[in-house]
Amino acid sequence: MSSKGDAAMQQPPKLFKRDEAEEDGYEEQLEEIEAIQNELDLLNDQASEEILRVEQKYNSLRKPQFDQRAKAIAKVPEFWFTGILNHPVLADHINDQDEQALRYLKNVHVHEFEEIKSGYKIDFAFSANPFFDNETLSKEYKLDEDGEPIAVSTSIRWKPGKNLAEVSAVEKGRKRPRDARRGFFHWFSDVQDEESDQIAEAIKDDLWPSPLSFYLGQIEQVEDDIDEEEGDQYAA
Amino acid sequence: MSSKGDAAMQQPPKLFKRDEAEEDGYEEQLEEIEAIQNELDLLNDQASEEILRVEQKYNSLRKPQFDQRAKAIAKVPEFWFTGILNHPVLADHINDQDEQALRYLKNVHVHEFEEIKSGYKIDFAFSANPFFDNETLSKEYKLDEDGEPIAVSTSIRWKPGKNLAEVSAVEKGRKRPRDARRGFFHWFSDVQDEESDQIAEAIKDDLWPSPLSFYLGQIEQVEDDIDEEEGDQYAA
Ligand SMILES: [Ca+2]
Ligand SMILES: [Ca+2]
Ligand SMILES: [Mg+2]
Ligand SMILES: [Mg+2]
Repeated sequence: MSSKGDAAMQQPPKLFKRDEAEEDGYEEQLEEIEAIQNELDLLNDQASEEILRVEQKYNSLRKPQFDQRAKAIAKVPEFWFTGILNHPVLADHINDQDEQALRYLKNVHVHEFEEIKSGYKIDFAFSANPFFDNETLSKEYKLDEDGEPIAVSTSIRWKPGKNLAEVSAVEKGRKRPRDARRGFFHWFSDVQDEESDQIAEAIKDDLWPSPLSFYLGQIEQVEDDIDEEEGDQYAA
Repeated sequence: MSSKGDAAMQQPPKLFKRDEAEEDGYEEQLEEIEAIQNELDLLNDQASEEILRVEQKYNSLRKPQFDQRAKAIAKVPEFWFTGILNHPVLADHINDQDEQALRYLKNVHVHEFEEIKSGYKIDFAFSANPFFDNETLSKEYKLDEDGEPIAVSTSIRWKPGKNLAEVSAVEKGRKRPRDARRGFFHWFSDVQDEESDQIAEAIKDDLWPSPLSFYLGQIEQVEDDIDEEEGDQYAA
């Protein structure tokens, strides 16, 4: 707590610089605050660890249900695709070319990494299809070694002449017709815009927790959920 | 899970509407998915409750330290004011009039309500000052009965001719001089912009957890913290 970084020079003038404060006789008070703060920091670390252990426990407890759910969902044709089309944000990013390929989407799985601040990965499992050879396409959001958010995604092995990311790489615009949208595969391969990724968040926070509601088009339910999530920014 | 809301009519056409799916013989699979989903929902509720109990436990454990910290901080003149001026976002909202009043800011306290999604309250305790009669000014962020985020703030009892919110209610603009900024008291009394309240979040998420770092102007530390928080959006 005692190093005085050069970066401080770029800041607005301080009324109480450290040295002044020390000269003015507040050393004891500042040391007392530092000691208390260290105790608080320790308690915060303990709380984070305890919450992480709860999350880990429930991730284990939920695993059998998620596995069963995946098996049951796989028996319903176009389950995830239908859910995607029923989500207002996701539907807005699907173009005509996407539809042909997303009919082969067999399963979706969101892995939330347990370590706090570490990220999540979305797996899209496809059945054999005329567009690409991969069985699973994964897009992962994590922090790099400097703590900056990055995204990485599977390289799609397109079959000759079937690259849907190229076909749909057209100009952005809200009112463009469905077949002119940039589309799902453009989003999937674009790892530049990792910070405000509405599509990934809609999959992780809406579709993954309640896929049946989206499949069934229970929109009222969905809007309530979205309202609640906006409120989350005020959660303790 | 069986009501089909009218709102569904406004959605893009579904490939599998519920009735079709039922007619096509997927009733059993959908019921199975619903049963599994109910188990998942129950586990999610249990996880939320358990995390809430951890947060409650640590709020109790931290209380003595926060009380001690407040007492120690109160002995250092202009501690919170200095911290505010050392925070890049907060400093950018302080104008010349504010400075006169914020010198009387004796204490800051952030209450995070324990109930998930419920909100938080920031108390600003002032010593007797030439500007207003209140001892504590509080601004609270919560959800109303419809689950919409709202803000409420104490009505400031200005002394005659001393209304700093009026004096500073000038036009917004990034490069305006310090004395022409809308200022702290304008922010405090403005409860319309509760959804993206940078100032409240800077106080709650930066200043409150590490006031000494801000008092001391340990900016490098601060920038690291802000980077980490941006990464939080990807936390599990
Ligand atoms: Ca610290
Ligand atoms: Ca539910
Ligand atoms: Mg699945
Ligand atoms: Mg205090």
